[in-house]
Amino acid sequence: MKLTILGCYAATPRSFTNPTSQVLQIKNHLFLIDCGEGTQVELRRNKVKFSKIKHIFISHLHGDHFFGLVGLISTFRLLNREKELHVYGPKGIKQAITLQLKLSNSWTNYPLYFHELESKEPQLIFEDEKVSVETIPLKHRIYANGFLFKEKPAERKLNMNACLQHEIDVVYYRKIKAGGDATLEDGTVIPNAELTFDPDPPRSYAFCSDTIYKPDNLPQLKDVTFLYHESTFLEAHAKLANPTGHSTAREAGLMAKGANAQYLILGHYSTRYPDLTLFANEAKAVFKNVLTADDGKVFDLDELTA
Amino acid sequence: MKLTILGCYAATPRSFTNPTSQVLQIKNHLFLIDCGEGTQVELRRNKVKFSKIKHIFISHLHGDHFFGLVGLISTFRLLNREKELHVYGPKGIKQAITLQLKLSNSWTNYPLYFHELESKEPQLIFEDEKVSVETIPLKHRIYANGFLFKEKPAERKLNMNACLQHEIDVVYYRKIKAGGDATLEDGTVIPNAELTFDPDPPRSYAFCSDTIYKPDNLPQLKDVTFLYHESTFLEAHAKLANPTGHSTAREAGLMAKGANAQYLILGHYSTRYPDLTLFANEAKAVFKNVLTADDGKVFDLDELTA
Repeated sequence: MKLTILGCYAATPRSFTNPTSQVLQIKNHLFLIDCGEGTQVELRRNKVKFSKIKHIFISHLHGDHFFGLVGLISTFRLLNREKELHVYGPKGIKQAITLQLKLSNSWTNYPLYFHELESKEPQLIFEDEKVSVETIPLKHRIYANGFLFKEKPAERKLNMNACLQHEIDVVYYRKIKAGGDATLEDGTVIPNAELTFDPDPPRSYAFCSDTIYKPDNLPQLKDVTFLYHESTFLEAHAKLANPTGHSTAREAGLMAKGANAQYLILGHYSTRYPDLTLFANEAKAVFKNVLTADDGKVFDLDELTA
Repeated sequence: MKLTILGCYAATPRSFTNPTSQVLQIKNHLFLIDCGEGTQVELRRNKVKFSKIKHIFISHLHGDHFFGLVGLISTFRLLNREKELHVYGPKGIKQAITLQLKLSNSWTNYPLYFHELESKEPQLIFEDEKVSVETIPLKHRIYANGFLFKEKPAERKLNMNACLQHEIDVVYYRKIKAGGDATLEDGTVIPNAELTFDPDPPRSYAFCSDTIYKPDNLPQLKDVTFLYHESTFLEAHAKLANPTGHSTAREAGLMAKGANAQYLILGHYSTRYPDLTLFANEAKAVFKNVLTADDGKVFDLDELTA
């Protein structure tokens, strides 16, 4: 599990700050989250194998989270992509992209699916054997969703010593890893607990940007492993946060604390502040494990939870 | 007169090459020509005072010439622009931009005017006292125009020695600069030629990208001072040029020669080639004064015509 920050600054792209985009690597998926202008170049700069991206999640349709999408979709076409691509985002996203593809007479040569979102309740929008993705309803100036990426509980780990000692045939391993007991030829039942160890606990990553401080979301975020939460402002500008649909670093800290998160990752900084430690310090006053996103930074989430 | 190349490479933006965009400074105007993804960042990097841009000319609606426009328009809004902005481009451009502004609920707070182009004949699309702009019909995979920027003939320059010698009152200077003769109090007529010098000859800049080799356009381009012509390919890949709607460097040279241009500026290079001198050498085989555009390069057009 690895998180690559391509951009994490608010508003307009500048020479040295990129708008929001990040890549979450989880269980063999490369999920792209948001796609501000210039994302395709940042994918190249950060050496992300971006042809492997099959799912793109767009939080909302403000330019700093969305204007790079049409370019990325077009570049996939120029690179002769064949694999299907799924885009999840607010209603209207399909029209915005397809209109531009139509005007440039450049329809994609790969299957492109749009999953438009309108609900204001959490929704399961992707699921396979190992991972699920839910929307997190946010409150911003326009319709916006965060995304909660969850690992599914893994199989139990075989206690190989115990299995060999009881001379259990390998054909039963799958059943045992799934939680079943073993029955020997003489009818003796060996309980699963004797043959297995607990698997690594499933982890989760919640992306919450852009949004006002919204403690309504705490039940859904309960015990999240990693909470990425926007902190556009410091408390010094708290008056700006609510009217613009944003949060302060302290509010991000309160969300992490209320959710009992293991880690808080701050991002979506206003460029008015000179130093990211200001954000970290403010959040640390209410929550301990604070990390700061920055453009080009890679978080090894396995290492953090090892 | 100054030309700043923000980007001049074909197809997708990469870490070290930008898609097409350039700024032509002419007679107190800053004209932006094309606006590929990332243009607003390149404007900052190249320290262009981009709030002064009032006119944007878009050749065609392929992404590498157009996908940066919506972001620039949005950034102007965030920077509290008040001055009006005029966008000239193919029919459909208004819908593509306004749909995205509507979806992000971010209508501009400054007047934004679209001038949609459909004609396949040259059209005068902008004119003031000192400059005119005409479309140049191009032939590409989709509807495309180049743009011909022309200085108007300047006023004649006063020969101050002659004016003082004839004791001509300053109230007549304007008339004399406009080409009129002077009549003294005793009725003597001093012909204009005695009182003035020729002004600097008016100069012109033609932007032709993207297009196949199209000698039909030579009459319109006759005696152009600077011809920017795309050269996506070298002759080695000439077979690719026509089907993709592009030209070779040699064809660009032939256009410059046929137009009797003073200078040819090459651009819109495919990134398959390692070195821009390959393009220059090929064009120089048919035309002498060849310059190569490159990202971040500034051409002092005054110096070149001094």
